[in-house]
Amino acid sequence: MVNVALDVMGGDLGVEEAVRGAALVSRESTSIFVFLVGDPEEISKALETVDYDPRRVQVMAADGFVAMDESARVVLERPDCSVMTAARLVREGRADAMVSSGNTGALVLAASHHLERLPGIRRAALAAVHPTERRHGPKGDPFALMLDVGATVTADADTLVGFAVMGSVYSSIISEIPSPSVALLSNGVESKKGTPAILEANQKLKKSQINFAGNVEGLDIPKGTVDVVVCDGFLGNVVLKMLEGVGEVFTELAKDASSRRLKWKIGLTMLSSGLRRLKRLTDWKMYGGAPVLGLSGVVIKAHGRSESRAIRNAIKVAAKAVDGKLIERIQHGVAEFNRSHEG
Amino acid sequence: MVNVALDVMGGDLGVEEAVRGAALVSRESTSIFVFLVGDPEEISKALETVDYDPRRVQVMAADGFVAMDESARVVLERPDCSVMTAARLVREGRADAMVSSGNTGALVLAASHHLERLPGIRRAALAAVHPTERRHGPKGDPFALMLDVGATVTADADTLVGFAVMGSVYSSIISEIPSPSVALLSNGVESKKGTPAILEANQKLKKSQINFAGNVEGLDIPKGTVDVVVCDGFLGNVVLKMLEGVGEVFTELAKDASSRRLKWKIGLTMLSSGLRRLKRLTDWKMYGGAPVLGLSGVVIKAHGRSESRAIRNAIKVAAKAVDGKLIERIQHGVAEFNRSHEG
Repeated sequence: MVNVALDVMGGDLGVEEAVRGAALVSRESTSIFVFLVGDPEEISKALETVDYDPRRVQVMAADGFVAMDESARVVLERPDCSVMTAARLVREGRADAMVSSGNTGALVLAASHHLERLPGIRRAALAAVHPTERRHGPKGDPFALMLDVGATVTADADTLVGFAVMGSVYSSIISEIPSPSVALLSNGVESKKGTPAILEANQKLKKSQINFAGNVEGLDIPKGTVDVVVCDGFLGNVVLKMLEGVGEVFTELAKDASSRRLKWKIGLTMLSSGLRRLKRLTDWKMYGGAPVLGLSGVVIKAHGRSESRAIRNAIKVAAKAVDGKLIERIQHGVAEFNRSHEG
Repeated sequence: MVNVALDVMGGDLGVEEAVRGAALVSRESTSIFVFLVGDPEEISKALETVDYDPRRVQVMAADGFVAMDESARVVLERPDCSVMTAARLVREGRADAMVSSGNTGALVLAASHHLERLPGIRRAALAAVHPTERRHGPKGDPFALMLDVGATVTADADTLVGFAVMGSVYSSIISEIPSPSVALLSNGVESKKGTPAILEANQKLKKSQINFAGNVEGLDIPKGTVDVVVCDGFLGNVVLKMLEGVGEVFTELAKDASSRRLKWKIGLTMLSSGLRRLKRLTDWKMYGGAPVLGLSGVVIKAHGRSESRAIRNAIKVAAKAVDGKLIERIQHGVAEFNRSHEG
């Protein structure tokens, strides 16, 4: 049995949607147990409206939560808020993993507060998938992994190396790619292109046992040239938000075109099944959530606008990471790297 | 009369296309004189095939050129190659501006070799336009300016401030926006978000006389929230190439959809006038070229795949920058900033 602590507070769509996601899991999977962490009254009310298996769901009271627009730092003043309580459950070993669709910064901070950084890992990272033209792995995933996308700002060479190792392990577990290709995001594919940290990380990764593809550049992000793209959190944040922005602009342009000319409206209608397919492809934010990697516990961030299905997916990803021994394998990967690098 | 030194060698489409662009200018404008810099035989042969006004075109012999795939550094071993000769013409005052559609790195290096950096400017920058949803300025330009996109890798606070001042001046001349809005690209809109260099630049720009809008994030790039986006050359390179990649992926997906189902093919045909409009919008690389800013002369990079019209546009942009007193106004802007900042 995998025990998952679900922070049901603070998501954009409210407690009910998170509880509904957990209820789905309780009916679909006999090997996952979910703690519903948050306001007990709100949770009880939500549970009354859904169909769930009481053997695999338990309410865990928390005091308060962090809203989306609050500073992450308030978690330190609210030790019993939902995200801190979920993190504590993991630290205490009562839960194997935590999931939250609330404030990202608060999640990273709460997790970092309660869980230790893994030996050999300099900085924890937030990893997220982004849509790509090329498909990845045996399941043909239409997305690639990128990290860090916001847990750090700057990153030195050893931090980038840690990201590469963690991304490789995570991708191999979740996308089931035996040896995921990993690259550093840079301003040119040549190994002498990049910031000093990238140049040094490139040299170090060349000697590692991960499937290192060298540098990739901006063009390679939408194409999906590699399975895992490594960068500092500043760059990852800009890139990911830009992809979101491009998606929004295209949606608005299509709406505008549809309202402007009948011919365009009909054309768009004829394309609708294709556009839906494209929409699914770009709806990557719902693909089961973004892991915080590098801590001594499985931590999954679900998108703030997660509906019940997205919450369910995030819980399942968390359980898959636990079953796949994510933490042990990251530790092993880092130790392996350090051995080969010293040798 | 504005004298423009056009490096006709090294573009992807060959000497003929560049010469044809200059020929167009010679017939359309009586106030621009173009030096055709490159292999005299090739130029003469190209001139025979086009209609031009000989009063405003002159061949200027150069010895060799830099190919697209060569290292920029070879310009130092080829002092008489086309891009170095064009830069020398500007240094000697025989030309007011130079234009090249060849190797970007070679252009930046040749220009930096022959032209001085302007007082108060720490680093020269390459600025480029990118397509945006929002339109800009009195002409309704469907693009915004971004700099640096590749002349530098890292940038300290004062370098970013210099980019902001230069971008503001260039945008006001070329897009005719009286007071262009300028922002720093960061991982959040709050002024405390960003790398140390961005935090410091944010504080300095707040006190400046340019129309500083604070930080923007990735989402704002395709939306076009501001007229000028400032970042270091590493980030600008990644962002710009990513936009190119997204465009390419969409084009391929549309082609694929068209070949897969008759209904989709018809739908795309009905949308074709709209798609052409979109294509024009995203065909930003042809908008007259990217300036190298911060040197004591007007330097314009035309896209490597420039056809004659794009070369013509780049020459006209160069002339417009000279007429608009780009160099003097950058110097004035920097002096102004330094005065207000000391005061």
